[in-house]
Amino acid sequence: MKPKSNIVNLPVYKPGKPIEEVKRELGLSEVIKLASNENPFGSSSKVKAAIEAEIANISIYPDGSATELTADLAARLGVQPNQIIFGCGSDELIALTARAFFVQGDETIMADQTFSVYKSNSDIEGAVSIEVPLKDGTHDLDAMLSKVSPKTKIVWICNPNNPTGTIVSESELTAFLDQVPNDVLVVLDEAYWEYVTDASFPNSIELLKKYNNLLVLRTFSKIYGLASLRIGYGIGHPEVVKLINQVREPFNTSRFAQAAARAALSDQDFVASCREMNREGIQFLQGEFDRLGLTYFPAHGNFIFVDVKEPAMDMFQSLLKKGVIIRAGFHVYPTYIRVTVGSRQQNETFIKALEELI
Amino acid sequence: MKPKSNIVNLPVYKPGKPIEEVKRELGLSEVIKLASNENPFGSSSKVKAAIEAEIANISIYPDGSATELTADLAARLGVQPNQIIFGCGSDELIALTARAFFVQGDETIMADQTFSVYKSNSDIEGAVSIEVPLKDGTHDLDAMLSKVSPKTKIVWICNPNNPTGTIVSESELTAFLDQVPNDVLVVLDEAYWEYVTDASFPNSIELLKKYNNLLVLRTFSKIYGLASLRIGYGIGHPEVVKLINQVREPFNTSRFAQAAARAALSDQDFVASCREMNREGIQFLQGEFDRLGLTYFPAHGNFIFVDVKEPAMDMFQSLLKKGVIIRAGFHVYPTYIRVTVGSRQQNETFIKALEELI
Repeated sequence: MKPKSNIVNLPVYKPGKPIEEVKRELGLSEVIKLASNENPFGSSSKVKAAIEAEIANISIYPDGSATELTADLAARLGVQPNQIIFGCGSDELIALTARAFFVQGDETIMADQTFSVYKSNSDIEGAVSIEVPLKDGTHDLDAMLSKVSPKTKIVWICNPNNPTGTIVSESELTAFLDQVPNDVLVVLDEAYWEYVTDASFPNSIELLKKYNNLLVLRTFSKIYGLASLRIGYGIGHPEVVKLINQVREPFNTSRFAQAAARAALSDQDFVASCREMNREGIQFLQGEFDRLGLTYFPAHGNFIFVDVKEPAMDMFQSLLKKGVIIRAGFHVYPTYIRVTVGSRQQNETFIKALEELI
Repeated sequence: MKPKSNIVNLPVYKPGKPIEEVKRELGLSEVIKLASNENPFGSSSKVKAAIEAEIANISIYPDGSATELTADLAARLGVQPNQIIFGCGSDELIALTARAFFVQGDETIMADQTFSVYKSNSDIEGAVSIEVPLKDGTHDLDAMLSKVSPKTKIVWICNPNNPTGTIVSESELTAFLDQVPNDVLVVLDEAYWEYVTDASFPNSIELLKKYNNLLVLRTFSKIYGLASLRIGYGIGHPEVVKLINQVREPFNTSRFAQAAARAALSDQDFVASCREMNREGIQFLQGEFDRLGLTYFPAHGNFIFVDVKEPAMDMFQSLLKKGVIIRAGFHVYPTYIRVTVGSRQQNETFIKALEELI
């Protein structure tokens, strides 16, 4: 077989351990997972009915254009339907964007500790990733700008940044957008934007009116609580959306995902309530970290990046034995763990386990 | 923006008209869709319960490795779990295979009238598609073999072929596999294999033991009736599967799709009953075509490719006005339509409409 040479030695993705497997292997009856930034409060009660209603259509292909969902979302955001594209999670939109833009030898710019899917997809397409160090855990947009060359096709900005949780402000972002060449695509990944309460956070939908080279990615996997269903979306200039559509498979989102997303969108009270409970969770966890003498980055998403002052993979294993799954293994921050903000009870269980270990 | 030059002018996929839209536009109360080779008998009754049970896990990411479904399927097929990969429909597996193998300038071989997704994905990756004419509507494997060059990476064989419905036999396929260089990947798309009753049809799973360069694609969208959920699979040598896994997003199938597929797999009585009803439908439709003096290719899937002796796009429009959606627009066969074998009532409605038009 003659595969593309640049993909042969890529690491195969190793998924996190499922709760059931951890229970079985470690003989635990109670395990909580604060590793994947899932919504501990589930999803809107309206979603269940939407899914049940779709069961009657199970053998019928979905609407490949997601016409109704697109119309709902366009109305909510105040954009045109041809500015929106849906994917099998925003993961797929990252893959499609890379596939639409990169050829071997192109350059792409991202932070050195950010969502790993930007780099993995750039690697697959043979683009060279220029990883710019975070500054105080935050995207250093000036340094990223200085790396732009004629070979640069895409700059990736994760806001809030996964895993650090930090944000770039509207003024920082617009200063960057004003200077970056307008043929360089800027992908702004806002998977966690609904959790943000900081007033300096960019209004990216407004910015789309001025910057044709901006593509905003969002998801239903986080605050909407639909991670199981795989649906995310991109919003950009119609020409950018059209290019990404060129490389999209016709039926990339399921009927159930489209129906659930419509139901979820219609329940903004649920979103507001999750944002509020998440904010309370952050305050509780930060208070406990302060009490325990642990430092952390400002948390704007539904997770906190905290320094446990020992090799984080050791802490991962120790917490696992106590029935708490978190995320570690961040190469720039070897003593930091990323913990999802859970329910009050989950947060207390995590803190109790952590306190016993430090 | 600087997209890949080879994708800019690809046609954007135009999905078929949804039933609701046809009803609205044409003022019809009854519309039947025999255009997408969906299962007119729905899916196994076990699937509904599986979906309902997953609603409780809606906010939790799926198992990216589909461990349980893989184990079920491996046991059923008598292969190892590391020989199986799941995709968001077998469409996605075609895209992933193209993405894993092709670089600009590679060559790939396929029939001149077959499933369009092979060519669209080859185009996206910059591979040159060599389209070999069908012979009597059937893959001409000798002619395809003669086109193999050192640049050839993948040969695509759709069996039964979409849209003609014809098959290549086990002896034809093994003669081809014995001669094709063993570093050329042969993708055998068996989306419709469960419908086949012809004894000469290849046992592709057995062939995998001998041919490491064979990749078999199958789907839950057809006889299993799960098109809405987007799940298909590939079976091949572990090294081939590993390469395709390198370019797969971690969570490409949903929790609902995995659960539904497990339930569907467990109900082979449903599959057998659909195969039988489909065979009866083919006999009915072929009898009616004979009566109407229309010729057709041997139909081994759940659709028939029939010559309506007039421009097929005109017949498409005429049938649409009578509330029957079929598929036309096959460039090699401009007077042929592809009609899905429906329920007895749908088949009768289609024949009545067709007879009024010819």
